[in-house]
Amino acid sequence: MTTPRFERIGSETAWRGRIGTVRVERFRYLDDGAEVTRENVHHPGAVGIVAVDDAHVWLVRQPREITGVPDLLEIPAGKLDVDGEPPLATARRELAEEVGKAADAWEPLHAIWTTPGFSDERLHLFLATGLRDVPRPPVEEDERIEIVPWPLARLDDAIDACEDAKSLVGLLLLRRRLAKRR
Amino acid sequence: MTTPRFERIGSETAWRGRIGTVRVERFRYLDDGAEVTRENVHHPGAVGIVAVDDAHVWLVRQPREITGVPDLLEIPAGKLDVDGEPPLATARRELAEEVGKAADAWEPLHAIWTTPGFSDERLHLFLATGLRDVPRPPVEEDERIEIVPWPLARLDDAIDACEDAKSLVGLLLLRRRLAKRR
Repeated sequence: MTTPRFERIGSETAWRGRIGTVRVERFRYLDDGAEVTRENVHHPGAVGIVAVDDAHVWLVRQPREITGVPDLLEIPAGKLDVDGEPPLATARRELAEEVGKAADAWEPLHAIWTTPGFSDERLHLFLATGLRDVPRPPVEEDERIEIVPWPLARLDDAIDACEDAKSLVGLLLLRRRLAKRR
Repeated sequence: MTTPRFERIGSETAWRGRIGTVRVERFRYLDDGAEVTRENVHHPGAVGIVAVDDAHVWLVRQPREITGVPDLLEIPAGKLDVDGEPPLATARRELAEEVGKAADAWEPLHAIWTTPGFSDERLHLFLATGLRDVPRPPVEEDERIEIVPWPLARLDDAIDACEDAKSLVGLLLLRRRLAKRR
């Protein structure tokens, strides 16, 4: 199957917020004409960065208030919230803002749907290598982000400690890559 | 850190739908008293099942209309939408409904936050083994789900083909487990 087997025949905005827009959408199946209604938290998309040097993967620990739990261990990440900015440019910006690094080499790692049951958020994962320090530009709420250089030798412990889906995908893909290289 | 460093001081319902409730929530930091507003797509939670026999991992291919792309390859999964049903019971139900299997052994694999930036959805991943066939109970929209027994020998191809975050976490954790056993 190379094209969707349905078409969107209607979309209505139900709520508009900073995280995105909730839309109630209607779809028709091309084969039997059946129609379904879906609710979509429309999201601009996002990036996540697996930033690796010889000894560390660079993670962050930050509050995610709506979960109600202590700070989460995550890869650096951010929303595609600058109009027209390509994902790679967003990734470069987020890596500098969140962990104060620039990278010589960028490689697309995987693109994922974070929650295809209720949101169209598409998240682009990148592998960033050849890291060097850059000044962290001042960003709102920066002070709550803790930079965590995690030893690659203990990568499995990071995977076990991580509960954030995108970060787990990134770290587990890194693990696969490092295992294959051995 | 064993407890959150913030407290929720307010919550207002902005929109109510089938996928969940959008709430605008207010939090106060315990250290400096700073307050932040967050939007939360409140979700009842979900389960995902990595169902494995000697030769296959049991996947499904299904339409996810809001993504606008062809059917996605996923692990069997479902929402905790029966009040008071424990995640393991939901997982048993979903495995029977989606792929027509029961399992003798169930093991918690990992619990993840799917999108902690805008939803409190908590998803419980289980490993199910000792599979046997059971009748698939009739379920709405069942006819759109294709059952895909994926050969374990080609697990990496499933990972490469999969774009669904929870499924990638499940398949990559399975890969790690199988690699360690060798």
